[in-house]
Amino acid sequence: MTASLSPEDLSFFFNPKSVAVFGASTNSNKSGYKLLKNIIDHQFPGKIFPINPRGGEILGMPLYTSLAEVPEEVGTIELAIIYVPNTRVVQILEDCIARGVKGAIIEAAGFGEVEEGKKIKAQIIEVTDHFRKIRVLGPNCTGITSIAQDGEGFFSSFIPMGKTKSGSLAIVSQSGFINGAYYPHFTEHNPSVGLRYVITIGNKLDLDENDVLEFLVHDPTVKVVAMYIESFRDVRRFIALSNVAQEKYGKKIVLLRSGFSSTGSRATTSHTGALAERSELIRAVIKQSRVILAEDFWDLFLLAKTLTFLTETQINPITQSNVAICTISGAAGAIMSDWAEKWGITVPELDQPTWDRLAEIYPPWMPPAKFGLIDYWPAVEHAKGDYERIVLLSIEIALVSPVVDAVFLTAYFNTTSWQVDWTRLQDLILKYKKPVFVWLFGGKQDVMAGETLFQSIKVPLFQSEKEIVRTFRKIAESDQGR
Amino acid sequence: MTASLSPEDLSFFFNPKSVAVFGASTNSNKSGYKLLKNIIDHQFPGKIFPINPRGGEILGMPLYTSLAEVPEEVGTIELAIIYVPNTRVVQILEDCIARGVKGAIIEAAGFGEVEEGKKIKAQIIEVTDHFRKIRVLGPNCTGITSIAQDGEGFFSSFIPMGKTKSGSLAIVSQSGFINGAYYPHFTEHNPSVGLRYVITIGNKLDLDENDVLEFLVHDPTVKVVAMYIESFRDVRRFIALSNVAQEKYGKKIVLLRSGFSSTGSRATTSHTGALAERSELIRAVIKQSRVILAEDFWDLFLLAKTLTFLTETQINPITQSNVAICTISGAAGAIMSDWAEKWGITVPELDQPTWDRLAEIYPPWMPPAKFGLIDYWPAVEHAKGDYERIVLLSIEIALVSPVVDAVFLTAYFNTTSWQVDWTRLQDLILKYKKPVFVWLFGGKQDVMAGETLFQSIKVPLFQSEKEIVRTFRKIAESDQGR
Repeated sequence: MTASLSPEDLSFFFNPKSVAVFGASTNSNKSGYKLLKNIIDHQFPGKIFPINPRGGEILGMPLYTSLAEVPEEVGTIELAIIYVPNTRVVQILEDCIARGVKGAIIEAAGFGEVEEGKKIKAQIIEVTDHFRKIRVLGPNCTGITSIAQDGEGFFSSFIPMGKTKSGSLAIVSQSGFINGAYYPHFTEHNPSVGLRYVITIGNKLDLDENDVLEFLVHDPTVKVVAMYIESFRDVRRFIALSNVAQEKYGKKIVLLRSGFSSTGSRATTSHTGALAERSELIRAVIKQSRVILAEDFWDLFLLAKTLTFLTETQINPITQSNVAICTISGAAGAIMSDWAEKWGITVPELDQPTWDRLAEIYPPWMPPAKFGLIDYWPAVEHAKGDYERIVLLSIEIALVSPVVDAVFLTAYFNTTSWQVDWTRLQDLILKYKKPVFVWLFGGKQDVMAGETLFQSIKVPLFQSEKEIVRTFRKIAESDQGR
Repeated sequence: MTASLSPEDLSFFFNPKSVAVFGASTNSNKSGYKLLKNIIDHQFPGKIFPINPRGGEILGMPLYTSLAEVPEEVGTIELAIIYVPNTRVVQILEDCIARGVKGAIIEAAGFGEVEEGKKIKAQIIEVTDHFRKIRVLGPNCTGITSIAQDGEGFFSSFIPMGKTKSGSLAIVSQSGFINGAYYPHFTEHNPSVGLRYVITIGNKLDLDENDVLEFLVHDPTVKVVAMYIESFRDVRRFIALSNVAQEKYGKKIVLLRSGFSSTGSRATTSHTGALAERSELIRAVIKQSRVILAEDFWDLFLLAKTLTFLTETQINPITQSNVAICTISGAAGAIMSDWAEKWGITVPELDQPTWDRLAEIYPPWMPPAKFGLIDYWPAVEHAKGDYERIVLLSIEIALVSPVVDAVFLTAYFNTTSWQVDWTRLQDLILKYKKPVFVWLFGGKQDVMAGETLFQSIKVPLFQSEKEIVRTFRKIAESDQGR
């Protein structure tokens, strides 16, 4: 029995009912052990068949010496995960095809520019009849993470992975490091950002970014897609899919694309065998696909986090780019004003009712500015240090104003003095449905506590003034279809 | 007796022998109390005279009702710190002049665009005879922090300040927030960065950025100067001083300048009364002064930290811009390659001996690239996971190479597995005198531990790939006199 599949029917990759794990190892130091343990530890709901020629037992399960040894009575095996030396992959694929396995994730590397790898690649294409007999993800990837419920689902990386909140963000990466060392970095720093999938596509011998994107476009649990790509397979399809995702389904796509430069494309060629593309082509694709372009991994994940928070707090689209800056530091406000103007964001003249409301809380010797730069420190002094009342009131006065679409906030955060019930900021955001982007500073322990708190209320924090303005601009442009 | 001073003789501001504190308060919630406590807590070595019309006692000292009440026998009072409502400032200055006080730091605000403030400003100029009778810092500032020894010196902000390491970095800021809420942010996140001075100049009624810079240029304890400025007082003098600092004394100056845009300059006008200047003028001044331009406060302090570390580890000037990228993530390496090429940094072809050394540690199925992109993960796999040996060896092979001026490193940091004795990286840097800029990732607790460790070895960490390239480019351009 051989599989014959339409490209759309790929759910067995992302939410398989049963998996065979080639290269499962009884040595707990080995990646083949960690891979199997990831599957088990995250309560994979389907059947698991570990396979290793040595046989025996593993984690309470029989370790089969080959796929043929798995009894036919267990039924269909949907997916194979292959983590073995490259020379053994072809035979395993033949076994999988014979058994009717629908798809294989090849996590092994060694299919690159070297002669041996090229030969194996050609053999794979031959035995799979150009992937008509079995679909393939990889090689040179770290599998798929599919988080059906908090901490649970299908975790197939060979690198130990922690429990993660389930949510609406999907990550697609041509590089394996997202399902590896960077995974705990992102998820532990952003415990409130729910992830739905992390899909690494590696050398994309068969499945590519478009196949994965097509699946995600139609998966209703996914709202935001963050992609890292080293080459485009089919630019027309990418543009079409991106536009459908955004226009028909209201999804957001953020793209980090390496290989813009000759040095960068040389780097991607040695990394995943990506073909060099001209930077003009890349720019044209990005423009037509209307995705949000990220500048590096930090920016990709910052945008992904911010968009996920905006989605989950049901912020309205940013139809204009008029921003009020509520700032404890006049200097930080001035820097943000400079970047705003440079990037086409307006700090507008305030309407009279808004100015009047502000004037009530400012001291006579320092009235508020006539435009949307709300330097609230004099008002705090005037209120004899009632920081909480003034900072929240300043933000609310700004959010109420018809000429304000969003607020940039700089604030001092302290857990022992200058208390603010910041959950009230979340209430304001939910009420007015306008985004508030925040730059927080204070002592190190305080700032860490602040990061945890702002995660929990789903209000994005930024490292710097420029970063706030840049991120806002990118999201506003996307909302406005620019 | 009135003071008559040359502009150069300003050390009584930065390292005074005696201070009078106007507005010292016995109420521990008030800023006038905190100001005095800062002076005492940081072991100010000189005499202190707290003054408040209410009189009494404060922190074990007599609280004088006026300056006249301080006995003549105590000798000269060098500096007055004035933290009282704006309406009382003129009389206090007259008292100070009568007593022969050399300088006054006016921390009070309320001298801005409002009528009352303008009137007081005019009176100040009159009673001081255009500052011939007494020099003035401020108003609207948070004083001076002068750190003579670790945690000790002259701390005159009205905001509580922690103990800080003494070192070679000086900060000059037109905004008070650097000696306030942002101070713990920077110092607690960067405990290894030694600070010498933090000087806030506020509305610069008398002393301006040039007066302060001139003092810092000639102070041999200062190696790096970070400045935040909202307006230039005298551009010719600024250009001349900057060039002397760099050429004659080998000091580095980083400048953050707000008010580039019309929105930004409107913001600075309402903040410190800065006059609007055309962005073309600002750009011309920056070019001629050859200072390193920072993009926001995050960038200002990142550059300040990095330059301080490079100075203290005695890195050679970066005469070329040839960089090797040692990366655990091929993707991060590709992103850095793109930014490098965009910004004129070369990832060079490797010389044969360097390539040969690398080839020895790479697996046959994945030889090293021919250019300086050292994606070391295959070598780690080939060394059966001996991460420590491979990562340190990769860096050393790169640093030894005659075609490499610096290394960009991306690394996974974990405190329980994948151990690396990172102090050996410091040894390599001290040996080869070439900079290594690092992007570290891993679980949250691990990364925090990594931040502490890399602080202690004075190797700068960065948030993102782009940030590494941007910071390197700025410092290389400065070293090369571009």
